[in-house]
Amino acid sequence: MIAELISVGTEILLGNIVNTNAAFLAKQCAALGLSCYHQTVVGDNEERLCEAIRTALTRADILILSGGLGPTQDDLTKEMVARVTGRELLLDEHSKERIRDFFQLRGREITGNNWKQAYYPEGAIILDNENGTAPGLILPYLDKHILLLPGPPEELEPMFVNQMSPYLKELQQEVICSSTVKLCGIGESKAETQILDLLEKQSNPTIAPYAKTGEVHFRVTARAETEAKAKALLEPVVQELTGRFGSQVYTIREEVSLEQAVAELLQEKGWKIATAESCTGGMVAARLTRVAGVSGVFETGVITYANETKRELLGVKEETLAHFGAVSFQTAEEMVLGLAERTGAEVSLSITGIAGPSGGTKEKPVGLVFIGCKIKENVTIKEFHFSGNREKIRESSVVAALSLVRSCMLAYE
Amino acid sequence: MIAELISVGTEILLGNIVNTNAAFLAKQCAALGLSCYHQTVVGDNEERLCEAIRTALTRADILILSGGLGPTQDDLTKEMVARVTGRELLLDEHSKERIRDFFQLRGREITGNNWKQAYYPEGAIILDNENGTAPGLILPYLDKHILLLPGPPEELEPMFVNQMSPYLKELQQEVICSSTVKLCGIGESKAETQILDLLEKQSNPTIAPYAKTGEVHFRVTARAETEAKAKALLEPVVQELTGRFGSQVYTIREEVSLEQAVAELLQEKGWKIATAESCTGGMVAARLTRVAGVSGVFETGVITYANETKRELLGVKEETLAHFGAVSFQTAEEMVLGLAERTGAEVSLSITGIAGPSGGTKEKPVGLVFIGCKIKENVTIKEFHFSGNREKIRESSVVAALSLVRSCMLAYE
Repeated sequence: MIAELISVGTEILLGNIVNTNAAFLAKQCAALGLSCYHQTVVGDNEERLCEAIRTALTRADILILSGGLGPTQDDLTKEMVARVTGRELLLDEHSKERIRDFFQLRGREITGNNWKQAYYPEGAIILDNENGTAPGLILPYLDKHILLLPGPPEELEPMFVNQMSPYLKELQQEVICSSTVKLCGIGESKAETQILDLLEKQSNPTIAPYAKTGEVHFRVTARAETEAKAKALLEPVVQELTGRFGSQVYTIREEVSLEQAVAELLQEKGWKIATAESCTGGMVAARLTRVAGVSGVFETGVITYANETKRELLGVKEETLAHFGAVSFQTAEEMVLGLAERTGAEVSLSITGIAGPSGGTKEKPVGLVFIGCKIKENVTIKEFHFSGNREKIRESSVVAALSLVRSCMLAYE
Repeated sequence: MIAELISVGTEILLGNIVNTNAAFLAKQCAALGLSCYHQTVVGDNEERLCEAIRTALTRADILILSGGLGPTQDDLTKEMVARVTGRELLLDEHSKERIRDFFQLRGREITGNNWKQAYYPEGAIILDNENGTAPGLILPYLDKHILLLPGPPEELEPMFVNQMSPYLKELQQEVICSSTVKLCGIGESKAETQILDLLEKQSNPTIAPYAKTGEVHFRVTARAETEAKAKALLEPVVQELTGRFGSQVYTIREEVSLEQAVAELLQEKGWKIATAESCTGGMVAARLTRVAGVSGVFETGVITYANETKRELLGVKEETLAHFGAVSFQTAEEMVLGLAERTGAEVSLSITGIAGPSGGTKEKPVGLVFIGCKIKENVTIKEFHFSGNREKIRESSVVAALSLVRSCMLAYE
């Protein structure tokens, strides 16, 4: 079955809020095995709202509208759905009571326009809103289903999960299972050329590639009548991908980030990591500490932005800085050696580079970054050339550093 | 003029990513005085992409498409625009060179599919991509304009601001001037109630409030026939706002971030800052080092995630940690004192807190954060209680820390 999302709200069209509801609902639909080919945003405007509903009815089985159920005059969603479907709006006494209670509970007086929220299009299933005043609605219409949700995420999300998702499951014959094969240390186009044959013959499961800074993800999605059958379709494709990319695959779990994969690897090995950052100014440590419970493997990080700090905190030699410069193979090496010595961590990481916009020269252009990794007695120093603005270069450096640490750990015998 | 946004990408339809590009572009269009009545999301599908383009051409003057310009097979945006407009795709030698350079610079081999990105629809203006390989395109078509942007925000945002926005300004009869009054250290609702009278009687200039984590922004936008007239409308409103919020206003310049305001204040005073972070794990330093040329005011940061590191790097006393705990007023104080002593920086900052999800107790719940700031001889320690998930608590701590440093610097005589 095909679902279509219609988000209603001028604040979205003005860019005042990011449409996180659409992302939430899209994920929910995918998990339910619903195909979603269109997302639309329209403002609180009668004509355009009706047009959006009519268009969606021509191409989708399930319409999911969010927003515009409030008490104010420019909340029109319910009214326009009633107009397009030719249903009358009726008063629901139960909802009216709930609205009265909601206000009394908060000792707030009810303004007349609030009763507007107690009306529903004839034939609609009314869903209590546990976190607000506007009820949700499910309107069966011809062979289709029109779902109306309140806009605030804290009202929309529980209502969809607890009351609409079960309704949609009933309608669904298919189950969908997906897995995301995440790669680091390889470019998008290079990764894709290695599986062109799979991409060409894909149908079920489907393989969707997409790129993040320094990473490539392949989302594999299978559909079948039962979860077991879907998983059976999924498995071999995921195995094929992991087989082809080997150690470049850092996870096949949707929820796992690169920093989490690194943290888990450290936990497995029973090792601790320490970081010394210059151009990335603490971004690697900030990424690592996003992982809950990372304190078991991460204790110490230093940001040695100035040469003096590189000497004091890491023992980088004055001559090294003078002769080779702060951004050099030698400095990266002395940084990582000094860090390891001072912290005693099994894994040490150093980063020094030129993030720009200024500071670049012909010999050492903006984007030149040296990353050092020491695992016990093994020391690896790598030179990178990144492009883009200051933030992009820093981002790329962080991902490259995490990838390097990961590959060095895997290579260590 | 009317603009319409078309976001292309199956990952958006699947809910794998939140469509922040649409919010960014919508905000930009609003700032340019363009009306936006529809936002559409379609996947990488020939038929549906063409249909979306055709529909948009019937109701908008300016089409802004983002995503689907990459090298892979399912990047179709450019191809479908060419199909709908009946333009041929031609090879651009300049873009081809840039792509070659991009890969050579990284010592990466170019796979054949990358050349796909060097093709453009006949008659299009080609925009170099400073942060990636896919060029942007502006295709004048009949009396309309079709803009194509790469999907990654770090490529899309600078390209739009630097290359497309000026083009769109040319098309506009009206001149739009805007200024953003940015506040820290005050909540959104509190800030809004202080200017309700202004919000109610606004027309030209308009005042649009935006809430960010720990910050409130008021975007003031005036429109007139000339820039001088628009500015004349803008000035008094901006002055009124800055007058009402006083030192809570950290900038009235759109492009200035809180970290930049703090860095500029340090430069003015000729002071250096050092940071010692526990729960934020380097996020404050990472924010500060986003500012180009920050090396003049920032030299040293430490991430003391473990108690041992707090002792070794900052000299926090064993008894203090044992008796009051790592997350305490006393530890925050000893951290900032030890940091100041060791670095000699005029401004020192310490953060220790419980970001969760675990580690909270009845007396010390998740979200409890202590922030210490030492300016020369003045020491300030503040206790905060933040809500939300781990990342939200960390974000809030970073903004609170920057706000505290700023207000302490302003208060210092």
